Amino acid sequence: MDFPVYKKDSDFSYTLGAFPSLEILQKKPSLVEHVLIHTSFVARPAAEKIIQLCTNHSIPWSEQDKVFRRLSPKENCFVIARFRKEETNLNEKAPHLVLVQPSDMGNLGSILRSALGFHFVNIAIITPAADVFDPKVVRGSMGALFSLNVQRFVNFNTYRSIYKNHALFPFMLTGATPLDMFQWPDPAQPAFVFGNESTGLPEEFSSNGTPLVIPHSTEIDSLNLSIAVSIGLYQADRLRKIHD
Amino acid sequence: MDFPVYKKDSDFSYTLGAFPSLEILQKKPSLVEHVLIHTSFVARPAAEKIIQLCTNHSIPWSEQDKVFRRLSPKENCFVIARFRKEETNLNEKAPHLVLVQPSDMGNLGSILRSALGFHFVNIAIITPAADVFDPKVVRGSMGALFSLNVQRFVNFNTYRSIYKNHALFPFMLTGATPLDMFQWPDPAQPAFVFGNESTGLPEEFSSNGTPLVIPHSTEIDSLNLSIAVSIGLYQADRLRKIHD
Repeated sequence: MDFPVYKKDSDFSYTLGAFPSLEILQKKPSLVEHVLIHTSFVARPAAEKIIQLCTNHSIPWSEQDKVFRRLSPKENCFVIARFRKEETNLNEKAPHLVLVQPSDMGNLGSILRSALGFHFVNIAIITPAADVFDPKVVRGSMGALFSLNVQRFVNFNTYRSIYKNHALFPFMLTGATPLDMFQWPDPAQPAFVFGNESTGLPEEFSSNGTPLVIPHSTEIDSLNLSIAVSIGLYQADRLRKIHD
Repeated sequence: MDFPVYKKDSDFSYTLGAFPSLEILQKKPSLVEHVLIHTSFVARPAAEKIIQLCTNHSIPWSEQDKVFRRLSPKENCFVIARFRKEETNLNEKAPHLVLVQPSDMGNLGSILRSALGFHFVNIAIITPAADVFDPKVVRGSMGALFSLNVQRFVNFNTYRSIYKNHALFPFMLTGATPLDMFQWPDPAQPAFVFGNESTGLPEEFSSNGTPLVIPHSTEIDSLNLSIAVSIGLYQADRLRKIHD
């Protein structure tokens, strides 16, 4: 098993850090190929749980400190899991979050974490987009990636041709309906659609479903994308009665 | 006028980029000491507006391309304004946002932008904290900093000794009241209080005002700080009738 620096086109990626590594070992152990534990960490109580999970799932682990210097030179990182990338088809009977060409890895990680927090576990990503499997995104999501179904599409129409029945709610600065007037559709499930950080959604989305707007002061041009998405999902989640 | 690399203890800072530079020239021109325009940018229409504002406010400007390489080596940055740092006392008759030891500059910039968007223009920062005047924060705020009153305090009690009458709403994972049950206080103004990214607020805040919680799935430990703050301010803003 080797541990080359991550590349977008490779079929595996890494969790950098104990927290996302624990998440994948608990949520998607079948994807994990190998776990590295730093020698300075291996005797700590937190490492015990990781080693136990590796044993339970017959996942090999080893100490190879020089890999840490290569894969995570600047960070406090003591555990790395190499895992197989896997996309999952979306559940057609659940609400969707559709991200059209999100470009910032930090935003994407935060969005995945918020989506899991607000019970939107089916995420469509329209490419070109930031790489959802990049170790930075995985880490930014705090491992939320491993509890979500994420599927990528080459364009919005491809997504729509597969998931025809969702009620679309594109978020647009020119949206006619303020977010707090949103009502959970019935019987269709909602798909919340957000555009790119710089350009937003193309104008044609305004005649595609029910455009929503997050009301804010004219003193700012727009909200940060991860914040807009999170506010949208928060508001929607308050209208559902499924809470754990 | 010299343009040394920014330091936390210097009495001036920089806006890096045309957007935040325009914001300060429009909102707080009296703070601007000098504007630099890159030679490749000076003939563009966007530069005209900047030069006009400099002329109107008797602010010197010049082209010194090597300063760009030093202050903003990696970024697409064509305008820099050197400005005097200035803190402003908070308005005691307006709602406050109180950030207790926020440590991440990216979060802080996003928070300032959301705060302006949701009409919370008075921001208390309890130190030690990320430097609100750091060029990275200024840029992350998209220049929102120059439309806000920001005041720093060495601890929460110092803030509280000056602004005694605000109704405190500390945000805590153990808060008793879900955010959507929040009611705008009367006659007191609210102060929304948020803790540090890693540690949250100390437990003693639970008996200090009305602790609020943002309901989310147990699948995540917490929301990103800038997202939690933005959701809180969004919800509060919906209860006010002051919209522009």
